[in-house]
Amino acid sequence: MADQHAQSGEDNESAAISAIHWDEPPEGPVLVLLDQRRLPAEEVDLVCTDAPALVDAIRTLAVRGAPLLGIAGAYGVALAAARGFDVEEAAAALAGARPTAVNLAVGVRRALAAHRRALADSGDQGRAAEAALAAARALHRQDAEASVRMSRHGLALLDELLPGGGHRVLTHCNTGALVSGGEGTAFAVALAAHRAGRLRRLWVDETRPLLQGARLTAYEAARNGMAYTLLTDNAAGSLFAAGEVDAVLIGADRIAADGSVANKVGSYPLAVLARYHHVPFIVVAPVTTVDPDTPDGASIEVEQRAGHEVTELVAPRVPVAGVEAGGGIPVAPLGTQAYNPAFDVTPPELVTAIVTEEGVVSPVTADALAVLCDRSRQVTI
Amino acid sequence: MADQHAQSGEDNESAAISAIHWDEPPEGPVLVLLDQRRLPAEEVDLVCTDAPALVDAIRTLAVRGAPLLGIAGAYGVALAAARGFDVEEAAAALAGARPTAVNLAVGVRRALAAHRRALADSGDQGRAAEAALAAARALHRQDAEASVRMSRHGLALLDELLPGGGHRVLTHCNTGALVSGGEGTAFAVALAAHRAGRLRRLWVDETRPLLQGARLTAYEAARNGMAYTLLTDNAAGSLFAAGEVDAVLIGADRIAADGSVANKVGSYPLAVLARYHHVPFIVVAPVTTVDPDTPDGASIEVEQRAGHEVTELVAPRVPVAGVEAGGGIPVAPLGTQAYNPAFDVTPPELVTAIVTEEGVVSPVTADALAVLCDRSRQVTI
Repeated sequence: MADQHAQSGEDNESAAISAIHWDEPPEGPVLVLLDQRRLPAEEVDLVCTDAPALVDAIRTLAVRGAPLLGIAGAYGVALAAARGFDVEEAAAALAGARPTAVNLAVGVRRALAAHRRALADSGDQGRAAEAALAAARALHRQDAEASVRMSRHGLALLDELLPGGGHRVLTHCNTGALVSGGEGTAFAVALAAHRAGRLRRLWVDETRPLLQGARLTAYEAARNGMAYTLLTDNAAGSLFAAGEVDAVLIGADRIAADGSVANKVGSYPLAVLARYHHVPFIVVAPVTTVDPDTPDGASIEVEQRAGHEVTELVAPRVPVAGVEAGGGIPVAPLGTQAYNPAFDVTPPELVTAIVTEEGVVSPVTADALAVLCDRSRQVTI
Repeated sequence: MADQHAQSGEDNESAAISAIHWDEPPEGPVLVLLDQRRLPAEEVDLVCTDAPALVDAIRTLAVRGAPLLGIAGAYGVALAAARGFDVEEAAAALAGARPTAVNLAVGVRRALAAHRRALADSGDQGRAAEAALAAARALHRQDAEASVRMSRHGLALLDELLPGGGHRVLTHCNTGALVSGGEGTAFAVALAAHRAGRLRRLWVDETRPLLQGARLTAYEAARNGMAYTLLTDNAAGSLFAAGEVDAVLIGADRIAADGSVANKVGSYPLAVLARYHHVPFIVVAPVTTVDPDTPDGASIEVEQRAGHEVTELVAPRVPVAGVEAGGGIPVAPLGTQAYNPAFDVTPPELVTAIVTEEGVVSPVTADALAVLCDRSRQVTI
């Protein structure tokens, strides 16, 4: 593709992971993405010079993860504006690149609204482009700040629940810098514990079927010099039984008003295991993840994904989430039907605490969540 | 390899799965194995004309599964004898082909003992060879008979626990005809339910890391025309939560005297989920699986397997259990350490019942198991 080009990321091997950044080379602004399709084998930046290149990157999962998609969408609008393309058209294409990703559309709308306002006020395309970029940068910064605050609240909670220190934390899926404008949600808490010298071990579930744990979380843990060990999702039970897990830290895709948590499939079995073994089960997510319009767990619609994610093995470097169907190596008999829910729902009674940037909710009740959301709204206004 | 040759299995597509059989073509007796390395993509028989060919087949996992290895070992001794090779040498090579597989050595010893006895009694090599073959056939037949009896006891138990019929059964790993002289253990019970018209759905855990569920159990279910659905091990929790599982049926690698069950990793989390959801968790295994010399679960040594089974993806047709290390496609950062226990231990209080060929133990107690083992010994004598 003419409008994307790869550049080696080797020169910043020791720096923090930057999943996305805006750059201003002499030939015009660009949006630089860490190409997640090629992780963990290679760190390659993907440079997008226009919105169609970014749409392609979103579609093929070079960039993924709910908050990060929102930031990418906002920058995409800014990029179209800065490069003099049709901003409304670019925004529509970006918002529709992955229709189910709500954050993407929200990020696009935010930058587009800023652009429209500035254009209406000033009549100047340059000022409008600056306003779109400012909106994208603000979203990026807010997400990074939320990460920092979640990690602080989360670490304080860990230290309180586990006064002995030397935390051994089990996590599932990928919740770090690769899905965030900052250092993520659950992973950011583990990273804060690591930096404070209090993380003894990060147990990383491989997270079938798409292996985000093996591919991405293990990569982030390795890049940050954390003591981590990978395991099949199956093996978590043995760790609990051996008393090797002090806490479970996971993210959330959506939290219902009653505190039910929808997250990557495999989270609920961990919650049941954690309860059986009296281990804290902690959910880390920004307040925006709480959806007051979803009353309870039963109201959460669970996305059923294509069966070939289970019946075929797909190696990295190939788009893994099945934008194009199949293409992997069959491991089950042809014609095998698969049950492949993208996430599961953990009821509030199994959740020890929900950690947000605005503070910790524990025990998890509808009232406590409502108070937190109200507080967050007041802060935003 | 000169001493193995492949023959198409297509002509018996509609017949039952035969993992192993003795054949007597004009050019001398042979041992025919269904090559499990090539499942589910292809059904190819592997024909062994001498013991070294069988040793190679065992080492490369063309034939696998504890009871089946015992039968293969016994036939291997008979094959060496029938073909006029050094029987003692062949027996030693066979018994050492996979040192950790106890059943293999037991099967080899049984045929060897019969051979030695007949040779001492008659001084006739032909009669000794016949005796070895008779011992192998007896072991094969006994295992098949045990399967039949386990399936009857298991189905009766299912019908008793779930009087409504229309059983929806979840299983883990592979416990069918591919590991047995008959139709297996847990899988044989599901198959009996299917034949009786009372199996509504067989939920097949893919069983990471080696995918025996996806590769082998799904294959056996498909071959038998059962209504089955494959899932990642992660997704079982969602099925329990949705009330879609009526019973869990698994096999066992070893059962301690107190009723603790060692089985494929991932069994214990299913037991915890089953308990949380008030679903029966049923273990199906022959009496020989009960080891009176292992007092309890803590005494069971858990085999830790190579990390590359987790950090690399290996496609079928390549030996999957890592006899040669690695060779797969890396999915985790290089140098990633993996926790990869081969099995886990479920305590007796989580096991609803243990089904054996001699009857059902429920509730599972040390005393009840001891009575069963005594009864079995009397029957054998």
